[in-house]
Amino acid sequence: MFRLTKQELARMIDHTLLRPEAVSGDIVKLCEEAVENLFGAVCVNPAYVPPAVRELEGTNVRVGTVIGFPLGATNTAGKVAEAGRAVSDGAAEFDVVINIGALKDRETAYLEREFGDVIGIIRKARPDAVVKVILETALLTDAEKVLGCRLAADCGADMVKTSTGFGPGGATEDDVRLLRSVVGDRLGVKAAGGIRDLETALQMIAAGASRIGTSSGVKIMQEWSEAKAMV
Amino acid sequence: MFRLTKQELARMIDHTLLRPEAVSGDIVKLCEEAVENLFGAVCVNPAYVPPAVRELEGTNVRVGTVIGFPLGATNTAGKVAEAGRAVSDGAAEFDVVINIGALKDRETAYLEREFGDVIGIIRKARPDAVVKVILETALLTDAEKVLGCRLAADCGADMVKTSTGFGPGGATEDDVRLLRSVVGDRLGVKAAGGIRDLETALQMIAAGASRIGTSSGVKIMQEWSEAKAMV
Repeated sequence: MFRLTKQELARMIDHTLLRPEAVSGDIVKLCEEAVENLFGAVCVNPAYVPPAVRELEGTNVRVGTVIGFPLGATNTAGKVAEAGRAVSDGAAEFDVVINIGALKDRETAYLEREFGDVIGIIRKARPDAVVKVILETALLTDAEKVLGCRLAADCGADMVKTSTGFGPGGATEDDVRLLRSVVGDRLGVKAAGGIRDLETALQMIAAGASRIGTSSGVKIMQEWSEAKAMV
Repeated sequence: MFRLTKQELARMIDHTLLRPEAVSGDIVKLCEEAVENLFGAVCVNPAYVPPAVRELEGTNVRVGTVIGFPLGATNTAGKVAEAGRAVSDGAAEFDVVINIGALKDRETAYLEREFGDVIGIIRKARPDAVVKVILETALLTDAEKVLGCRLAADCGADMVKTSTGFGPGGATEDDVRLLRSVVGDRLGVKAAGGIRDLETALQMIAAGASRIGTSSGVKIMQEWSEAKAMV
């Protein structure tokens, strides 16, 4: 039915909980689900990196977090300190929101400096960290999406990511295809925002996504098992 | 018609633009509108504090910004650095989002330490700064709202604020009344989120708000002038 194996799909999923009202019990549950389903990573707010790292010690699940999230409009000093603390707390993956206004204003020097500082502090502490740049495509023109991808690639990011999930729209197949066409096979593409079922996840992967950010990972894996059972 | 004068109302308004897609031209316009309408302050994302400070130099309009916005779920180090940079950039008012999960988990020691660190770095650089704690009341029980107010007061905040404007609900009269009943006349109460006309603004003030956060300030002042003209 699909070329992907179940385990390959699971490894592509960032099991995500970024709601501000999440409590520590929710984070524990998220981590347990990630282990059980063999997800590649969890994605939690920076304040929850320490408990997620404790929960996932000794497992293959990586702890991811978000920087400048979800607006991307904080100052560089805030993003750098947030990332520095998260990496020292044990985070291994970092989804960094681009400064959207600066991108629209074509402030490329500002953006390069900010990415340089943020990615620099992460890599210094953890050379194998995965850094993803969130573009929030629903707010951008195609030209801005392309410029954002190029800046992310030039500044040493590992992936570009469509959306925060808090914006006016989530991942679309067209955006995933566009991002993939710009970054080629040099960078990964993470589709996130509004991916709530297996069908949508597979459409994103077919369009070029190498990573899926979703809070519906458990449901998606259940749908996989049910689809398999029907074959 | 109202006991308030037009100028008193204007001074209570934080003229707000926090959309992530705002560009520098939008910030200039916001500042011009604030000067023209005699608003008390503007409220912008931290990355836009420097241009707002430049635009408003020599005027009576104060530059406000947001910390840990809008989720409140970043780490303390990120909030502290963000605030430290914003105060050195010239911000005079700081709307700090409480860590909502920690509040729900009754992690009062964590919250006190975080408020102490954030408020400390602000006051050290600028003793006259106004610090507001955003509770995001739409996500809280009444008991959590009360606890949030008490923590904000104990930690030296100047105001409590209902909402970010990015949550599932904005200011309500009931919440403003509740917050006011807890803080008495020791702290201010800022109503924000969904206040888009004069009638709503006046309802919030009647319920106990001493500050109004809105992106509809210009429209509200126009409505005031029209209402006056009809008397």
